Amino acid sequence: MTEPSLHPSAQKSRHTVSRQWILHQYPQRSHSISGAFKLIERPLHPSTPSTPQGTCIPANKILLRTLWFSNDPAQRTRINNASPDRLCTDLMREGDVMSATAIGEVIESSHPEYRKGDLVRGAFGWSEYVLVDTDSSRDWQLVKIPPKTNPADFMAMGGTALTAYFGLLSVGAATSADKTIVVSAAAAAIGSIVTQIAKNVVGIKRVVGIAGSEAQCEVIKERCGADIALNYKSPNFRREFEEATPEYVDIYFDVTGGEALELSLRRIARNGRVVACGAIFRYDSGGEEMAVSAKAWTNIIFMKARVEGFTVSEFKDRFPEAREQVFRWVRQGKIHPLKTVWRAKFEELPQGMVKLLKGEHVGKLVTEIITE
Amino acid sequence: MTEPSLHPSAQKSRHTVSRQWILHQYPQRSHSISGAFKLIERPLHPSTPSTPQGTCIPANKILLRTLWFSNDPAQRTRINNASPDRLCTDLMREGDVMSATAIGEVIESSHPEYRKGDLVRGAFGWSEYVLVDTDSSRDWQLVKIPPKTNPADFMAMGGTALTAYFGLLSVGAATSADKTIVVSAAAAAIGSIVTQIAKNVVGIKRVVGIAGSEAQCEVIKERCGADIALNYKSPNFRREFEEATPEYVDIYFDVTGGEALELSLRRIARNGRVVACGAIFRYDSGGEEMAVSAKAWTNIIFMKARVEGFTVSEFKDRFPEAREQVFRWVRQGKIHPLKTVWRAKFEELPQGMVKLLKGEHVGKLVTEIITE
Ligand SMILES: NC(=O)c1ccc[n+]([C@@H]2O[C@H](COP(=O)([O-])OP(=O)(O)OC[C@H]3O[C@@H](n4cnc5c(N)ncnc54)[C@H](OP(=O)(O)O)[C@@H]3O)[C@@H](O)[C@H]2O)c1
Ligand SMILES: NC(=O)c1ccc[n+]([C@@H]2O[C@H](COP(=O)([O-])OP(=O)(O)OC[C@H]3O[C@@H](n4cnc5c(N)ncnc54)[C@H](OP(=O)(O)O)[C@@H]3O)[C@@H](O)[C@H]2O)c1
Repeated sequence: MTEPSLHPSAQKSRHTVSRQWILHQYPQRSHSISGAFKLIERPLHPSTPSTPQGTCIPANKILLRTLWFSNDPAQRTRINNASPDRLCTDLMREGDVMSATAIGEVIESSHPEYRKGDLVRGAFGWSEYVLVDTDSSRDWQLVKIPPKTNPADFMAMGGTALTAYFGLLSVGAATSADKTIVVSAAAAAIGSIVTQIAKNVVGIKRVVGIAGSEAQCEVIKERCGADIALNYKSPNFRREFEEATPEYVDIYFDVTGGEALELSLRRIARNGRVVACGAIFRYDSGGEEMAVSAKAWTNIIFMKARVEGFTVSEFKDRFPEAREQVFRWVRQGKIHPLKTVWRAKFEELPQGMVKLLKGEHVGKLVTEIITE
Repeated sequence: MTEPSLHPSAQKSRHTVSRQWILHQYPQRSHSISGAFKLIERPLHPSTPSTPQGTCIPANKILLRTLWFSNDPAQRTRINNASPDRLCTDLMREGDVMSATAIGEVIESSHPEYRKGDLVRGAFGWSEYVLVDTDSSRDWQLVKIPPKTNPADFMAMGGTALTAYFGLLSVGAATSADKTIVVSAAAAAIGSIVTQIAKNVVGIKRVVGIAGSEAQCEVIKERCGADIALNYKSPNFRREFEEATPEYVDIYFDVTGGEALELSLRRIARNGRVVACGAIFRYDSGGEEMAVSAKAWTNIIFMKARVEGFTVSEFKDRFPEAREQVFRWVRQGKIHPLKTVWRAKFEELPQGMVKLLKGEHVGKLVTEIITE
């Protein structure tokens, strides 16, 4: 990562400019982002007249300071120009502000619905300040955070929870008739919500969560309510997986690929389903390594199984309904957000991606900006 | 294969016994069946009283002599006790009569619907004579061959055509909105029907068939109507595959696995579908070899693709309707059966499986028994 190229407090006195982290050059290897980003300073929303401090900002605009940032594996995908050749979202271009979902506090507003102090979620990117035109609030994907809501909790219940919701219920078509579900990365952002919905809402008899450490396995059982937690790094993982799935696997929720995918297909139940949500493959290899063996694949035929990929954006018409449902379950105590909050300065922002890729967090990894 | 253990004409004078090929021992390697089968002689339908020649056979029974045998890869699967661990149909037991669909000629009948000389299809196995109780005609899956119908054509339009029909139309959900379909083993039994339905019934714009020789490629274009035929043994197969699918792959009908599967997933279209119908993997390896790479798998997610396995038996309630439809298309000249007829003696029957596994046939491989 490059050094910040300007003094951190340069624009603090006037909100006419903002510091921003831009994509400087595509990272060269999958788990490294060194040299990828650059900290710059740009006029706020250059297409609108700049806003001298003290003057009223233009009509229907709000000025926000970003305070919480969501860290998502999809951000890494969007700056990966190596492979796969085709992405679900557009590849970012060098020079673009790094994309990110964030929550900002309203500093100034000329729109009656937004007041100073309100917290607003949006697609703000890695910008310290944002001047938002509320006429284009759809592009910004603005959502006001309800009062008394913890912003990090709200973030953990954003796109992550929607992905869990549609993946499990629409793509996976989970019902209480399913006897066994296996969830990969079940202590992580999506997996922790999938596990809770599967157990506490759908009521699946045997919920098996997979993670990479004993501490995460503890979380999967104690905080997500899974019946069984398995450590995929265990030397006996294969045998443990078999013992954990005596009635085979009706649904496998896949966010990782790897051994969990292979074993789930080997033990897929008749009419079983694999929800292909994510893959943590080493792209350095160009993707030539094995995803699934012949033995596992053959089970797709013999067991009449279905593997289905999805991206949550295809469900966007149903986001409002899903959000409401998810928050209802939270109020009813059926599910709760899991998160790891990392406090950092704006100029440290890219380190959040490093932490994300390390994968030691529990639940959603949220960066909270230290303001002083 | 073992030598026949009795004189070929032993039971010809009286129809109280039949020669049968039984499974002697599970074959050891995937493309070898040597030592697997044994020719024996057994009383006809031992649970019923034996039938002295000349005497009327018991009520509602018909005695048939089998004359045409269907050769199916599924037969090989049913005697494979190595892997996969779970099969869609039961594994055969050593000592069982080898299972097979056959067409027999009625020799004697005490049932008014069946007359001497009628041709009847059924699950007769590798038996030279069969005594069928028409009260259990469902178990035998009896179908009378319509007059003036070529038995080998009828055989090519049996389970094979039903597999093509349900695989393409139900599992694959093919419509004329699909721009490109890729069919593997498109000169073989299932593939040749899939190719014709895709082109001549559904009306898919670009039908790409894959086979292993130039002669088969010729058949795919000239006799099945495919727009493009590709030889998967070509050194430039990857490049040719890309050039053949400029609008990507909406449907891939998979009966082989291997390179065709890998490339189809790499070029799967948005919302594309893979119909997982069959796999010709080397089970000698225990199935540990790669079916699909990480790069191909990732496309399932990004392209929101669906891979779905099936066995035709799950559609059995709809067989009559499908059969009618298929024969209507034949009468309308939209599709026609492709077959290779191998003339052989009953004692040579297992060699049909050897031929099948060699894969040099075009369309359905039918064994016609030489009677003299
Ligand atoms: N389809 C969609 O619409 C959609 C939407 C959002 C996200 N996604 C995808 O879903 C996946 C998960 O997202 P998330 O937000 O839940 O991520 P996350 O919180 O960063 O969790 C990723 C987890 O994967 C685990 N992991 C890493 N390598 C692994 C391996 N080889 N085997 C097993 N586990 C491994 C990590 O734990 P350990 O390394 O400690 O085991 C980490 O906890 C990502 O691939 C993302 O791209 C898809
Ligand atoms: N799902 C179901 O309900 C169902 C029902 C029936 C059959 N099946 C399956 O469908 C498949 C095809 O059945 P079929 O009756 O059409 O078989 P078939 O007539 O015997 O055709 C098999 C073809 O596969 C080709 N082949 C062999 N190895 C190959 C490879 N490595 N790559 C590409 N092609 C290869 C062979 O040609 P070359 O070797 O000359 O290239 C041969 O023509 C079988 O796997 C069978 O088990 C499934």
